[in-house]
Amino acid sequence: MEMIHLEAPGELTMSVGDAMFSQRAIRRFKRDQTISDAHIKIILDAASKAPNGGNMQPARYLVVRDRESIKTFGALYHEAWWAKRWDDYGWTSKEQIPSGSVYEMPAQLADEMCNAPLIILAFTIVQGGGMSVIPGLQNMMLAARSLGIGSVYTTLHAKVMDRVYGMFDVPADMEFHACVPLGYPRGNFGPTRRYPSAQTTYWDKWDNSPPWARE
Amino acid sequence: MEMIHLEAPGELTMSVGDAMFSQRAIRRFKRDQTISDAHIKIILDAASKAPNGGNMQPARYLVVRDRESIKTFGALYHEAWWAKRWDDYGWTSKEQIPSGSVYEMPAQLADEMCNAPLIILAFTIVQGGGMSVIPGLQNMMLAARSLGIGSVYTTLHAKVMDRVYGMFDVPADMEFHACVPLGYPRGNFGPTRRYPSAQTTYWDKWDNSPPWARE
Repeated sequence: MEMIHLEAPGELTMSVGDAMFSQRAIRRFKRDQTISDAHIKIILDAASKAPNGGNMQPARYLVVRDRESIKTFGALYHEAWWAKRWDDYGWTSKEQIPSGSVYEMPAQLADEMCNAPLIILAFTIVQGGGMSVIPGLQNMMLAARSLGIGSVYTTLHAKVMDRVYGMFDVPADMEFHACVPLGYPRGNFGPTRRYPSAQTTYWDKWDNSPPWARE
Repeated sequence: MEMIHLEAPGELTMSVGDAMFSQRAIRRFKRDQTISDAHIKIILDAASKAPNGGNMQPARYLVVRDRESIKTFGALYHEAWWAKRWDDYGWTSKEQIPSGSVYEMPAQLADEMCNAPLIILAFTIVQGGGMSVIPGLQNMMLAARSLGIGSVYTTLHAKVMDRVYGMFDVPADMEFHACVPLGYPRGNFGPTRRYPSAQTTYWDKWDNSPPWARE
């Protein structure tokens, strides 16, 4: 493979500030609006530009657009999502999820993954490659955001992994990192709520507050 | 801790496209130009806005500005960098690094970390928290880029970890993720070279090329 230089695509005009500060997990997608191949390319080109260890670029992306594959994968995602809830909390149905819990929307996504307009699965050709693919996934989601496309970073569960690899012919030595559904949002982007950086940042020593904590 | 909503800072005006496509590892910094506290806050606010698992926000950042601490840490970084080269290749000095190797510039950084204008160390309060801090680190580096500040994602080595934790009073149960030096670059941003996304992306099945591979 030969490396190339790419100019910034003219479509990614949103400011860094607006993209980052209005990014949020989008789990509900319009079903009648597909993402163009041109936009998928922009999103993946953006991913390729992220930092990665020694510029070895071990990340590989599997774009799933085929409706039948998404339906089959959606069922595996649903099984994986509930397997994780069983492991962590012993839950087996939505009625057991406490009202107001952070799991309510993800449970909805587990039901709806089978209808996602587009799913991108992220792998690396090396083990322990997280540092060389997760920055690219963030580029991908920010580029999508700037195109008005929503996404959310999700994972799978060991229980379904062989079947997922099998259905897409993924070689066994690939390391799986993330499952990112994408689509035009039903509803709005942002705002998100976060802890103030004054409380998650230390200054020269652990537990020393930064200057802006005293403003 | 109470969560807040933050508007995008007016300073982050660079387009997403320009920031991502001109981001590159910056390892040589101007020594006479420090980064303002206001810019450090913007960078860390940007980090806080990244996706993280269940919005639990386990990431914690240690900003190191004290010159004596950077000097001491720089010596530990140098030791860690060479410990890793010894593990991987048996190298003990620069003369053993092949000319043109991807390790030439990082070896230079190992020498110069002691002079970095600013270092941010990233941790999580949970183990296995990479997915909840690495997207934030990418936001941090893109926000820095858009302010004209260079940075590079680096790691440490088990050999020095106790001493690093000790010198900054980092609690033993924190998980270390990255060491990011930041500063105004000596030299230019970009361009970077990458494999074409046509060759790192598959379409519905592994090894199926995307449509733009045939353009």
